[in-house]
Amino acid sequence: MGHSVVDDSGINEVDISSISSSRRTNKRPLAYKVGFPPPRSLVSEFSQNLKEALFTDDPLRRYKDQTTSRKIVLGLQSLFPILKWGREYNLIKFKGDLIAGLTIASLCIPQDIGYAKLANLDPQYGLYTSFVPPLIYAALSSSRDIAIGPVAVVSLLLGHLLEQEVDYTKNREEYYRLAFTATFFAGITEAALGFLRLGFLIDFLSHAAIVGFMGGAAITIGLQQLKGLLGIQNFTKKTDVISVMKSVWGSVHHGWNWQTILIGVAFLGFLLLTKYIGKRKRSLFWVAAIAPLISIILATFFVYITRADKHGVQIVKKIKKGVNPSSLHQIYFSGPNLVKGIKIGVVSGMIALTEAVAIGRTFASMKDYQLDGNKEMVALGTMNIAGSLTSCYVATGSFSRSAVNYMAGCQTSASNIVMSIVVLLTLELITPLFKYTPNAVIASIIINAVAGLIDFKAAFLIWKIDKLDFIACVGAFFGVVFVSVEIGLLIAVGISFAKILLQVTRPRIVLLGNLLRTSIYRNIQQYPEAVRVPGFVIVRIDCAIHFSNSNYVKERILRWLRDEDEHLKVNNLPQTEFLILDMSPVTDIDTSGIQAFEELCKNLKKKDIELILANPGSVVMEKLLASRFTELIGSGRIFLTVGEAVLNFSTKAGEEA
Amino acid sequence: MGHSVVDDSGINEVDISSISSSRRTNKRPLAYKVGFPPPRSLVSEFSQNLKEALFTDDPLRRYKDQTTSRKIVLGLQSLFPILKWGREYNLIKFKGDLIAGLTIASLCIPQDIGYAKLANLDPQYGLYTSFVPPLIYAALSSSRDIAIGPVAVVSLLLGHLLEQEVDYTKNREEYYRLAFTATFFAGITEAALGFLRLGFLIDFLSHAAIVGFMGGAAITIGLQQLKGLLGIQNFTKKTDVISVMKSVWGSVHHGWNWQTILIGVAFLGFLLLTKYIGKRKRSLFWVAAIAPLISIILATFFVYITRADKHGVQIVKKIKKGVNPSSLHQIYFSGPNLVKGIKIGVVSGMIALTEAVAIGRTFASMKDYQLDGNKEMVALGTMNIAGSLTSCYVATGSFSRSAVNYMAGCQTSASNIVMSIVVLLTLELITPLFKYTPNAVIASIIINAVAGLIDFKAAFLIWKIDKLDFIACVGAFFGVVFVSVEIGLLIAVGISFAKILLQVTRPRIVLLGNLLRTSIYRNIQQYPEAVRVPGFVIVRIDCAIHFSNSNYVKERILRWLRDEDEHLKVNNLPQTEFLILDMSPVTDIDTSGIQAFEELCKNLKKKDIELILANPGSVVMEKLLASRFTELIGSGRIFLTVGEAVLNFSTKAGEEA
Repeated sequence: MGHSVVDDSGINEVDISSISSSRRTNKRPLAYKVGFPPPRSLVSEFSQNLKEALFTDDPLRRYKDQTTSRKIVLGLQSLFPILKWGREYNLIKFKGDLIAGLTIASLCIPQDIGYAKLANLDPQYGLYTSFVPPLIYAALSSSRDIAIGPVAVVSLLLGHLLEQEVDYTKNREEYYRLAFTATFFAGITEAALGFLRLGFLIDFLSHAAIVGFMGGAAITIGLQQLKGLLGIQNFTKKTDVISVMKSVWGSVHHGWNWQTILIGVAFLGFLLLTKYIGKRKRSLFWVAAIAPLISIILATFFVYITRADKHGVQIVKKIKKGVNPSSLHQIYFSGPNLVKGIKIGVVSGMIALTEAVAIGRTFASMKDYQLDGNKEMVALGTMNIAGSLTSCYVATGSFSRSAVNYMAGCQTSASNIVMSIVVLLTLELITPLFKYTPNAVIASIIINAVAGLIDFKAAFLIWKIDKLDFIACVGAFFGVVFVSVEIGLLIAVGISFAKILLQVTRPRIVLLGNLLRTSIYRNIQQYPEAVRVPGFVIVRIDCAIHFSNSNYVKERILRWLRDEDEHLKVNNLPQTEFLILDMSPVTDIDTSGIQAFEELCKNLKKKDIELILANPGSVVMEKLLASRFTELIGSGRIFLTVGEAVLNFSTKAGEEA
Repeated sequence: MGHSVVDDSGINEVDISSISSSRRTNKRPLAYKVGFPPPRSLVSEFSQNLKEALFTDDPLRRYKDQTTSRKIVLGLQSLFPILKWGREYNLIKFKGDLIAGLTIASLCIPQDIGYAKLANLDPQYGLYTSFVPPLIYAALSSSRDIAIGPVAVVSLLLGHLLEQEVDYTKNREEYYRLAFTATFFAGITEAALGFLRLGFLIDFLSHAAIVGFMGGAAITIGLQQLKGLLGIQNFTKKTDVISVMKSVWGSVHHGWNWQTILIGVAFLGFLLLTKYIGKRKRSLFWVAAIAPLISIILATFFVYITRADKHGVQIVKKIKKGVNPSSLHQIYFSGPNLVKGIKIGVVSGMIALTEAVAIGRTFASMKDYQLDGNKEMVALGTMNIAGSLTSCYVATGSFSRSAVNYMAGCQTSASNIVMSIVVLLTLELITPLFKYTPNAVIASIIINAVAGLIDFKAAFLIWKIDKLDFIACVGAFFGVVFVSVEIGLLIAVGISFAKILLQVTRPRIVLLGNLLRTSIYRNIQQYPEAVRVPGFVIVRIDCAIHFSNSNYVKERILRWLRDEDEHLKVNNLPQTEFLILDMSPVTDIDTSGIQAFEELCKNLKKKDIELILANPGSVVMEKLLASRFTELIGSGRIFLTVGEAVLNFSTKAGEEA
């Protein structure tokens, strides 16, 4: 037992005092000193930091020691993943993709018509957006499950933003041109983020915020559908719950149309029922999947024979036949609308990205394959750029359809190709059949679709785990529901940032105590059994120290000392001699931090308390040396562990006594 | 030695294997389990967080167990610190304050005249600003050293911002009204920040950024003085170095006036010489302190007798006699100018605050007295509000004058009162004498004053300690010098924030190794002597885990595993069985973080690697339990220390073998 050293978590029979005595009997110095790595050159340091910041996934590792030709093949494959999975493609896989593709097609066609409305565009533009982008995406993406097309939230957001710039009822043409411009720059934004490897920027929208935002958007969209569901003619353009409710009740006596309501409610019931069945029995999910198409067919047929449209049941009327026309010449590349387009494009592009990447990650981890976020973004961007040239608006991965795609057993992104072919055929052949489709059934389909975006379970879990997260979640939700989509978004982002800043500006600084019969030193709040060491105040700083928290850190430490002093005065104990800072968690310190430490040091000297550091990290060590702080506190004041420090100085105290 | 446990930093004679064997011989369970504190109620948790965020200095501690009357006294004293120091005030202290007050007065009068020019205001407004605000401040502040009045940087900034809104040459009245409005709202901003205890917000301007910004501003101001120093008539309004240099060289042939240059250069030389003397011999600092006043007197007298103003030497001409007129009625409380005023006020108020608080902190720590940041802000705010009602513009603490104040041996803020009385007398009696004061001498005084703001030493230290800080510093500097004051400011703030975000989005995640013959586990890059434990990958996460870094954390850990695997394949070693995450530095985890952990867990299960946690903090522990993550990884997977974990499982491995 003789020379075993009490340290940062060793079990030990003897208590501090007896150790120090045993220590006195043999003065073997500790085997290890606090190390710091050999100084790196500025360049290597910088490049290393850059790598960590942008190339975390080490994209070039696959090219290491390969032949040139192989490198080229790998390069092409990483540009066009289709070349990769295409080679191993076979009939079994195709079967899976075919079924999945047909299913999501049947799902997307009615949704597209409705979502186009959310963006204040004619129905065919929804279908256009389900034709071109999926084709491009299928060739460029390495995700196997994402189903591409227009989605509810982005459609709503885009429509809302466009409406603020241009009134679509008055000058439709400008509205469409601006829509394509926005789509173009949404694509540019996405591609650029991916290409510059800035994908991590979208991580700044926290999970909690997204849950709240999506939920709010779902409700907003649902409310918008009341127009179709109740057959209201003049409906408000605002999206907040209050004005919508006003215009709903306002038109209750003259505006509502019972035939419409009948159709709408009936099919909504049908859809919810099938959904319930699908949920209960996973094997019957396809019932829920094809229900919308069936509803459309039935409803259309019903209206056609009863001519219900003569009785005020609103119908789709006309969907322009034929494939996407070009829209290159319609994009604004100059003038004030260019700026507007860029603004709207960036926002909606980011949101589209967030949704797609979230989906991609989920399914990738479910099927356990690596998904290169940055490459995904390039794919999404390219597809939207292509879309903007062919009369499409912003497309992205859809939660609901991707889930169906997955359950229908898709194997590769070929399912997107199948879908887009079906959409093509629809555009070419059967759009006229939609003439008699009642808006009510489309409304009910959309309500049914977006209902899935409201995730109570997640919200509850957030509440249970992290209250501050929950505030972000609720804030985003209410922002969207009561004000508008982008206010909700602003709140979400704002709270998310505020949270980070609060966390770094007010790091936890805890008092450590010794676990008896060991010399593990732990937070005395977490470990009530931990005891203070007389004469020592041991504090752990739980965060990197920099300008935004350096003053707080200093003040907080001094406060611990004050409290301790009072405590000692009350129980008239010997007063504090040593302040030990456990630096283990301190990953970095900047000039402001050093300054604060120097002030702390001065302050302690006046109180004649000795400042001792335990286990500073390499970066911190470098900087303490560079700033000569090590000299300021005096030699032999930096230890490998708290235990070391306590031992060393309690020995000293012992000898002094 | 039998039952001593190898742990997170114990020195120990035996290596892992023999420990595990010794471990097998006795199965005494570890004495301590990972603890977490008793669950707190939501309210208490929230209030505690709020306290840490806003009431870090625990302002009410002084009122604890005091009589009511005493409480009232303390309350009044904390509102008006003058009541506190006033009672212990005596002749010795007064002597100090008197001398200091006279010194800073002699310093401030010429500076005020010049600074007013920087803000495009008539000279007397500078003097006004040195009369009212210091009086108010003296009664409200607990700082003993800050010398209040107009300062170079704020004057420049204010002038620049105002100029962008109103052209002072065309409509002077509106310009002045806007200036007072801005001052009013600068005061409101400062007081509000203090009152709402949001003082820490100014900490977001990093030390490095301030150094750069100040240096840049000093140079800009210096360049502005060339107008006076060279006697140029038509000078650019821009402040960036290029346009200034253009207009200087543009007027070289016809614009320059040699008499002016002679006066200016002569006195500048004189001032720099005295400054040098003051620096060399601290006891002679007063030479430097009164030099400006002497220069003024000499120069004025000289011009008066030679009538040099007839030869194109520009002179101050007229300073309006008399004390501050009221300006209440001039403040905009409505209309578009209100908004402009608020905007300008907030910005200049924040900057003024930053400067004052920086000075306050410096001297407080030099004389070792506590300075309540938030109370200071209230004081500064109140004084500026009062100022805005009495024809003053934004005042704050001046670096140069505070330093002189300190060296002249000021004892309390009474020195400010002395100064303002002197200024009052100046306004009432001797302003006419300034008629013949040449602008050149004022220019040279200002150049001499702002030269002190350029802090090469600090810049060099920043470079040595933290390269990223240095970038912020240089960025701010060039922003100010080459573009404009507020662009420099923007850059400074921008880089500061980017730095924080980068730090939290890309936390360090290091591989740990065992220090042989001990079981301290340390970063193998910092401690090259540390060795890997076969079969284990031990990783430490050096930051709180939340939405902005959760994905990175997951990816990075998986990358460590991949690298390890390759390494193992190459030297065909047994492959990894256990992944130990040292959670000691992880202070917090949010829902996104939990999600990432769950995905990581799934991922590892596929690779059949066991996930083990070491020493999670209390908050983390709470959340892991709340989210049921503890159940997911299975019982007995959380250890007090890395050593524990390694020991436990290497034993297991041993037994399996």
